[in-house]
Amino acid sequence: MSPRTFPTAQDAENAFYEALERCDLEAMMAVWAEDEEIICVHPSGPRLTGPDQIRESWSHIFSSGPRARVHITSQVAISAMMLAVHSVHENFTLEGERQSDARPLPVVATNVYLRTAAGWRMIVHHASPAPAEKQPAAPEPPPKTLH
Amino acid sequence: MSPRTFPTAQDAENAFYEALERCDLEAMMAVWAEDEEIICVHPSGPRLTGPDQIRESWSHIFSSGPRARVHITSQVAISAMMLAVHSVHENFTLEGERQSDARPLPVVATNVYLRTAAGWRMIVHHASPAPAEKQPAAPEPPPKTLH
Repeated sequence: MSPRTFPTAQDAENAFYEALERCDLEAMMAVWAEDEEIICVHPSGPRLTGPDQIRESWSHIFSSGPRARVHITSQVAISAMMLAVHSVHENFTLEGERQSDARPLPVVATNVYLRTAAGWRMIVHHASPAPAEKQPAAPEPPPKTLH
Repeated sequence: MSPRTFPTAQDAENAFYEALERCDLEAMMAVWAEDEEIICVHPSGPRLTGPDQIRESWSHIFSSGPRARVHITSQVAISAMMLAVHSVHENFTLEGERQSDARPLPVVATNVYLRTAAGWRMIVHHASPAPAEKQPAAPEPPPKTLH
């Protein structure tokens, strides 16, 4: 057991979305801090707390195998010495679809990372579906106040 | 203009929910950091970024006046020198209802606070409705891994 070390919060975030795309449960759980109070809210889901509930949820999500690509856009990042918060839009494309075909609505995610003795790890992932009316389902929605 | 100063992230959180209950727009906006990249996601809503979008959204929400009490439960807090992250369940009760009558489903919220020159301020509020099946609509749901 020598889990990967993530030198930055961005490295942890990249590994999180790679694991999600590959449906790799061990890689996914290696991104999370080893703490009983880690928190995960899947889109339209309840709050899950602790590694057991979170592992079980990803295991269920991954059980049908890799099917989607996720393209991250509109990142806003705030970081301090020990904590980093990233807000992103997750844009999912199902296998076999071109991004321009599917144009699914993005998922809004707030990701929080903690600097631990073993590098940066995720401690909170809170995701929720964005509604249709305010998000023109373009791959890269550019409202004027986002960057 | 001498906005209140919040010595701790918890003080800012208390002021946030007080302003929400009172539908006090100025008090609400005084909780937020003065930054173009503050982020607010209302339940089932899109990501709003910056003070203009966020003020407009609260103004709209507050336009019908105070009607609900909010009872915060199941807080999980992680804090570092400059940033603090609170995960809570927001339990709303409409005016005239007893908490035991209404038992509405909680809203799951991730609140992020930044220590600024003017005290602790909110920089992210991400809220999403919890689904019925996993959240028994009790005022204080006690799943075993929460505290």
